[in-house]
Amino acid sequence: MRLPELNPPVRLLMGPGPSNPDPRVLRALTSPILGHLDPAFLALMNEVQDDLRQVFQTKNQHTLLLSATGTSGVETMMVNLLEPGDEVIICSSGFFGQRMIEQATRTGANVRAVEVPFGEVITGALVEEELKKKPAKVVGFVHAETSTGALQPAAEIAAVARQYGALVVMDCVTSLGGLPVKIDEWGIDAASSCSQKCLGSIPGMAPATFSPRAIEAIKNRKSKVPSLYWDLNMLFNYWDGARGFHHTMSSTLVYAVREALRIVLEEGLEARWERHAKASQAFEAGLKAMELSIFTKGPVLPVIKVVNIPEGVDDLPLRKRLLEMDVEIAGGFGPLAGKTWRIGIMGTNATAKSVIALLGALEQVLAEQGYYRERGAAVAAAAEVYKG
Amino acid sequence: MRLPELNPPVRLLMGPGPSNPDPRVLRALTSPILGHLDPAFLALMNEVQDDLRQVFQTKNQHTLLLSATGTSGVETMMVNLLEPGDEVIICSSGFFGQRMIEQATRTGANVRAVEVPFGEVITGALVEEELKKKPAKVVGFVHAETSTGALQPAAEIAAVARQYGALVVMDCVTSLGGLPVKIDEWGIDAASSCSQKCLGSIPGMAPATFSPRAIEAIKNRKSKVPSLYWDLNMLFNYWDGARGFHHTMSSTLVYAVREALRIVLEEGLEARWERHAKASQAFEAGLKAMELSIFTKGPVLPVIKVVNIPEGVDDLPLRKRLLEMDVEIAGGFGPLAGKTWRIGIMGTNATAKSVIALLGALEQVLAEQGYYRERGAAVAAAAEVYKG
Repeated sequence: MRLPELNPPVRLLMGPGPSNPDPRVLRALTSPILGHLDPAFLALMNEVQDDLRQVFQTKNQHTLLLSATGTSGVETMMVNLLEPGDEVIICSSGFFGQRMIEQATRTGANVRAVEVPFGEVITGALVEEELKKKPAKVVGFVHAETSTGALQPAAEIAAVARQYGALVVMDCVTSLGGLPVKIDEWGIDAASSCSQKCLGSIPGMAPATFSPRAIEAIKNRKSKVPSLYWDLNMLFNYWDGARGFHHTMSSTLVYAVREALRIVLEEGLEARWERHAKASQAFEAGLKAMELSIFTKGPVLPVIKVVNIPEGVDDLPLRKRLLEMDVEIAGGFGPLAGKTWRIGIMGTNATAKSVIALLGALEQVLAEQGYYRERGAAVAAAAEVYKG
Repeated sequence: MRLPELNPPVRLLMGPGPSNPDPRVLRALTSPILGHLDPAFLALMNEVQDDLRQVFQTKNQHTLLLSATGTSGVETMMVNLLEPGDEVIICSSGFFGQRMIEQATRTGANVRAVEVPFGEVITGALVEEELKKKPAKVVGFVHAETSTGALQPAAEIAAVARQYGALVVMDCVTSLGGLPVKIDEWGIDAASSCSQKCLGSIPGMAPATFSPRAIEAIKNRKSKVPSLYWDLNMLFNYWDGARGFHHTMSSTLVYAVREALRIVLEEGLEARWERHAKASQAFEAGLKAMELSIFTKGPVLPVIKVVNIPEGVDDLPLRKRLLEMDVEIAGGFGPLAGKTWRIGIMGTNATAKSVIALLGALEQVLAEQGYYRERGAAVAAAAEVYKG
């Protein structure tokens, strides 16, 4: 019983990630592989670091790719910066904030949550209130909450946290490459992202960056980092130090990220953010034409829309029907399951073509379920945004 | 300052891994990517599990790919099976045994090392001696010690460990796909490997398998697994359970492993082991013709040879010169640095062609350094093995 030839369907990926990678990224994957200690590969790692610093808008020497997916980035920040008993404040306004709480808790740190209902934003004032009660070593938050579509006020939270002497940890998994992320300007001490959303690569790598303050805190730990795989002392010995063996880094995955970063910087960060903003505007115009509403209460992210499922429309059959047309969107998380869709407009799909394909398919499946306003109106509204 | 087009050199990778992947694996990488919850992708995951079970020679339901490199497999086994204060015996006869000790220690378990000098093997009797002193929850060992080239007696160690009620944990990073690995027959409770050595894929994934006994032990933990990313309860909920989101698994990397496993099973495990054994024999014949000796004291692995650097030969310049000819071998680890080379004959490179290319290049660089026996003798000796 041998497996048949690999033949996956060709999806338009409009969920919260992965998004469709650039074809140039796929081509880079087939390049001949290199050993993880080959001088030619070490030179490529340096190049990728330089490009990552540009994309993160940072001068941090300690910038790298982690050999795992985006979830690992938050874990790496937590296990390196926290020790059992440390005080940490985690801001949560959705699934990924709750997950950050869970990842911080598993380090044995004393986690204090600053929580608001799903879909809302955490203000600097809320964080300050908690810091006034008791200081904290670390304040962590999610920049772009993928589960609710809300943009959190990163600069505001970071300013307050720094004022009270805390290290600032940011999950920018969904924002990096699609909207402004300014590590140094905002005063972020540790940030991590992923390769497969707005950066336009494939999944499998987590870009991350650490300020001198963060590195100092890691060097001053009393105990060893509980994970060898995420131990930044060892990782930076490989990336920036004696080049000692730590793990067998995949040249293939680094090629993919390198090509994605080249494309990002060729386009230019500002132009890329504008392209995402325009696609967002077009998609929101389409939603409005269909009389669909957005769940999010605070500032809505350009790159992910959490849309209320209208009454009478059945989530699972609709998404199954979309998939029959090779269009993927995602359902809601946790309390939002069955009530919302999560729709991503990221990377190569932040374009007129992809937004129109998505809206056209959505109009069709909504009509099939008896939800019907004015057929074609959504596509027309989106197309209008792209006129002249 | 934009980066130039990606243009890595085309190396013959004869170090301890990565090895050169099969061209079919590189082709699979360019397949259209799928979301991590797409039914088409979930079906592929099931296929990969079936193939992994065949390659591991196990019926374990709990068999999966971890989204990280081989080093993560050992960490995953340790953080799931051990809790602070647990008794664990780790066998060490080289760098990767010492590393397993380190990974076990970081869980907070009480680690007792059974150690022999680098290059030797650990007998069942040695393990029994330690178990007689005090029982242990887990006995861990490295099947193929990549740093010394020694094959450890897996079945013997496992039998003793089970006799004393311990769970048996095996690192088979270097052996899987290149020599017999028989999880069920030997009584192994947890084993992990990597994608880029004898399996012939690219780096970035760690295949792993867990017996019902191991899963039972994880379910009976008193504390949460300290890592969310490696938490097998959550991972198997994704792989085998409610298909709940855990991390954004890379379809691309799964395609690569799937294609590599297809190739392994098309060839057949026995035939593949024989091919590796023959390439090993050819390479050893070449070494003998050059009067080079093998460092390893115990049974020598077919897939990796740790070779003593002859007196008067300078390690780094020789390897640099080899790399100028696009041939990669590796230096020794730890106490063996500067004294040995580690040479891998794995996957696509366990062939006459690759062994002869390597021996020819080695003869040349050794001659350039004044180490000279009979030019051409090594290639001739290896070629003889492949005659008729």
